[in-house]
Amino acid sequence: ALRLRVREALGAREPADAVRVQGWVRSVRSQKEVLFLHINDGSSLESLQVVADPSLEKDLTFGSAVEVQGKLVKSPHRMQNMELQAETIRVVGPCDIWSFPLKMRERHPLEYVRQFPHLRCRSNTLGALLRIRSEATAGIHSFFQDNGYVHIHTPIITSNDCEGAGELFQIETSSEAKESAEKTHFFNVPAFLTVSGQLHLEVMAGAFTHVFTFGPTFRAENSQSRRHLAEFYMVEAELSFTESLQDIMQVMEDLFKTVTSTLLSKCPHDVELFHKYIAPAQKVMHVTGKNCSPVIISYSEAVEILKQASQTFTFKPEWGCDLQTEHEKYLVKHCGEVPVFVVNYPYDLKPFYMRDNEDGPQHTVAAVDLLVPGVGELCGGSLREERLPFLESRLQRLGLTDAYQWYLDLRKFGSVPHGGFGMGFERYLQYILGVDNIKDVIPFPRFSHSCLL
Amino acid sequence: ALRLRVREALGAREPADAVRVQGWVRSVRSQKEVLFLHINDGSSLESLQVVADPSLEKDLTFGSAVEVQGKLVKSPHRMQNMELQAETIRVVGPCDIWSFPLKMRERHPLEYVRQFPHLRCRSNTLGALLRIRSEATAGIHSFFQDNGYVHIHTPIITSNDCEGAGELFQIETSSEAKESAEKTHFFNVPAFLTVSGQLHLEVMAGAFTHVFTFGPTFRAENSQSRRHLAEFYMVEAELSFTESLQDIMQVMEDLFKTVTSTLLSKCPHDVELFHKYIAPAQKVMHVTGKNCSPVIISYSEAVEILKQASQTFTFKPEWGCDLQTEHEKYLVKHCGEVPVFVVNYPYDLKPFYMRDNEDGPQHTVAAVDLLVPGVGELCGGSLREERLPFLESRLQRLGLTDAYQWYLDLRKFGSVPHGGFGMGFERYLQYILGVDNIKDVIPFPRFSHSCLL
Repeated sequence: ALRLRVREALGAREPADAVRVQGWVRSVRSQKEVLFLHINDGSSLESLQVVADPSLEKDLTFGSAVEVQGKLVKSPHRMQNMELQAETIRVVGPCDIWSFPLKMRERHPLEYVRQFPHLRCRSNTLGALLRIRSEATAGIHSFFQDNGYVHIHTPIITSNDCEGAGELFQIETSSEAKESAEKTHFFNVPAFLTVSGQLHLEVMAGAFTHVFTFGPTFRAENSQSRRHLAEFYMVEAELSFTESLQDIMQVMEDLFKTVTSTLLSKCPHDVELFHKYIAPAQKVMHVTGKNCSPVIISYSEAVEILKQASQTFTFKPEWGCDLQTEHEKYLVKHCGEVPVFVVNYPYDLKPFYMRDNEDGPQHTVAAVDLLVPGVGELCGGSLREERLPFLESRLQRLGLTDAYQWYLDLRKFGSVPHGGFGMGFERYLQYILGVDNIKDVIPFPRFSHSCLL
Repeated sequence: ALRLRVREALGAREPADAVRVQGWVRSVRSQKEVLFLHINDGSSLESLQVVADPSLEKDLTFGSAVEVQGKLVKSPHRMQNMELQAETIRVVGPCDIWSFPLKMRERHPLEYVRQFPHLRCRSNTLGALLRIRSEATAGIHSFFQDNGYVHIHTPIITSNDCEGAGELFQIETSSEAKESAEKTHFFNVPAFLTVSGQLHLEVMAGAFTHVFTFGPTFRAENSQSRRHLAEFYMVEAELSFTESLQDIMQVMEDLFKTVTSTLLSKCPHDVELFHKYIAPAQKVMHVTGKNCSPVIISYSEAVEILKQASQTFTFKPEWGCDLQTEHEKYLVKHCGEVPVFVVNYPYDLKPFYMRDNEDGPQHTVAAVDLLVPGVGELCGGSLREERLPFLESRLQRLGLTDAYQWYLDLRKFGSVPHGGFGMGFERYLQYILGVDNIKDVIPFPRFSHSCLL
């Protein structure tokens, strides 16, 4: 018998006589004359309806694994194309429904299934989420490959510790960790989990012009926020021969629109589930529309808007201070609940590698953050300081000249104007699907006090 | 002027009047009447020839970044399609050739450029390598997506420490690491860098049937070998409803052949560079041939072959002992320097999750290793023990029942016969390109005593 995935069976154009389908039982309904089963194998949200003689019902519980052989025929039902008329049904692995935490025909809340990291992928919602995540991953790779970017595996373990992007995880061999801290390090130097692949991408942009990376990044922050994880994925791109922040914003926008369009065409049912049951009010579609451009405001304008707001903020808006979550929310609302680019941040707020705008003595740098409704900061980018004297004097003031000698080298040997950005992959998924908690958009969430499995 | 990448300019079908190309100077040759430049921007191994008036030669040193505007015309040279007749040449970033460690027209050995992790990507060899690596990455994603696998980001940080795959890296927040070891852990439990995503993939195979992951894995082994890194990439796949090791071997073979064919068609010049200058004797092509099947021998047969060998081994071959590198080499040679699958290893040699073949009391398990010439073990896989009683008793004997309660759950709720494998990505690249040292096939190698940048 021809083995078919559920997705293939559902999409078949012609009936077929000897077909074999394997999967897990999603529903059982026994009538006097006929037994209805729904079989799902994760290849699609939709399950395949199996019609059988009631005598075949034996140990067919919700969650059990089965192999069904029979005829694939046109379904008389309006809602589906094909159904399987079973000749034999074999239970491959039974399921004890009393101890199985998922129940038939129940829409389990995301908070509930989060307790079962090894089983929640079998729920409709997490199943759809992870298929979308997989397609988005493929879409991101395609977008960059199609546009001539070289993919780089930037390192996970790094000896850079002075970027100031947040609290770091440090690495030791487990034997070192068990004994005293006085031993030699495995790598001879202290080693950390990466917070960004940017500096390594800059190395590569000096050879390949356009490069990208898409991998895990880490923060050891003690946060229980619905927007932070200790381990999360970031898409980062770096472009040589780029002199304007506008170019960087254009790539962000193109990436966002292309990947989102891909998802809407590749897994419309999975996306629909979220827009129907998880975030009915989500208005993401307009972002992918051709005639929608995000709003661009400068940091200085943003501070003015905040100062004139009738709302009282916990943190008083002040030029030179970081934008807080409450400020980001207000700005997005003020602009009409659309994506907002904020550009040209104060020099002293930003890391050493950002390019001085020279609009005053060390006044602003060519940085950009993309804020989106419901999520806040989705992307961050900048032009990098490519001018050796500017970079040298800034590193010297910070006492980092020795540590970044290699980075200065990049400005000595064929330096070019360049820039890049990073996009938080989980935040992207949260945004387009309207998922409130970041723990629900990653297969195995890691955060303070929790590292299950 | 129309901005073109070097690759686009070289492949253009028609001449074009106003063209702008940016890149780095790979060679300068000044004659009385004419100046020849070669410009490379990393989009291809080949550089674009620029023809200019000698008066335009100013600061045009090897390694400097330039922007050239001019006319793209048919080249009179047999070896290339198009060349650029320069009207203006602007030096964007100069390069001091005296301190730049790469020299014009020199074929630097891999060992030499390895000293400059921030500059070696600008050499022809590493440039070609990283383009191939990027295409191979895309090819691996495509292979699995095209075959209905869902991509899963398995976690990097994990609380599993008892798989026995080797020495682990442990993670602490950097503040913890600095103080005493008595503090509470960030994750409440000890946390480690993953050695394999397999167990997490098994979770997902119970929902999506076919899943894969492709990410970094870690070993804290104090090895200076040319085949080991502390941080390396692994492709792993897991297949539900799979009852035979043959199925797993077939996927390994298909993956290998498909990705290798993709490379040969997508970046033939880059691959050719390796086969010409790095490993002239490399005979990898036959592996992609349709009528070439790898050899399959059992572990027991392998031991017999080794026992009958005229060669003296440092480790005496004995049934029940691990195959050593010298043994693997001999077996591959014995079989005619072709890929060799070794199947059905002793039960006691392998981890708890491998499936008992029941060919004797705990005699062998359904495991497979793929050995290849020059590299040794390229892939490892097995059928997993899906039968609850078998798994329970084995975990109990190992004292791991509590730690793996979640793993036992997978066998209680709709368990299915399944299996999978992992392929070392760097070893794959070493094998097909004939690169002797694994440090040369990854952008930023991490190994004991070394974590540069």
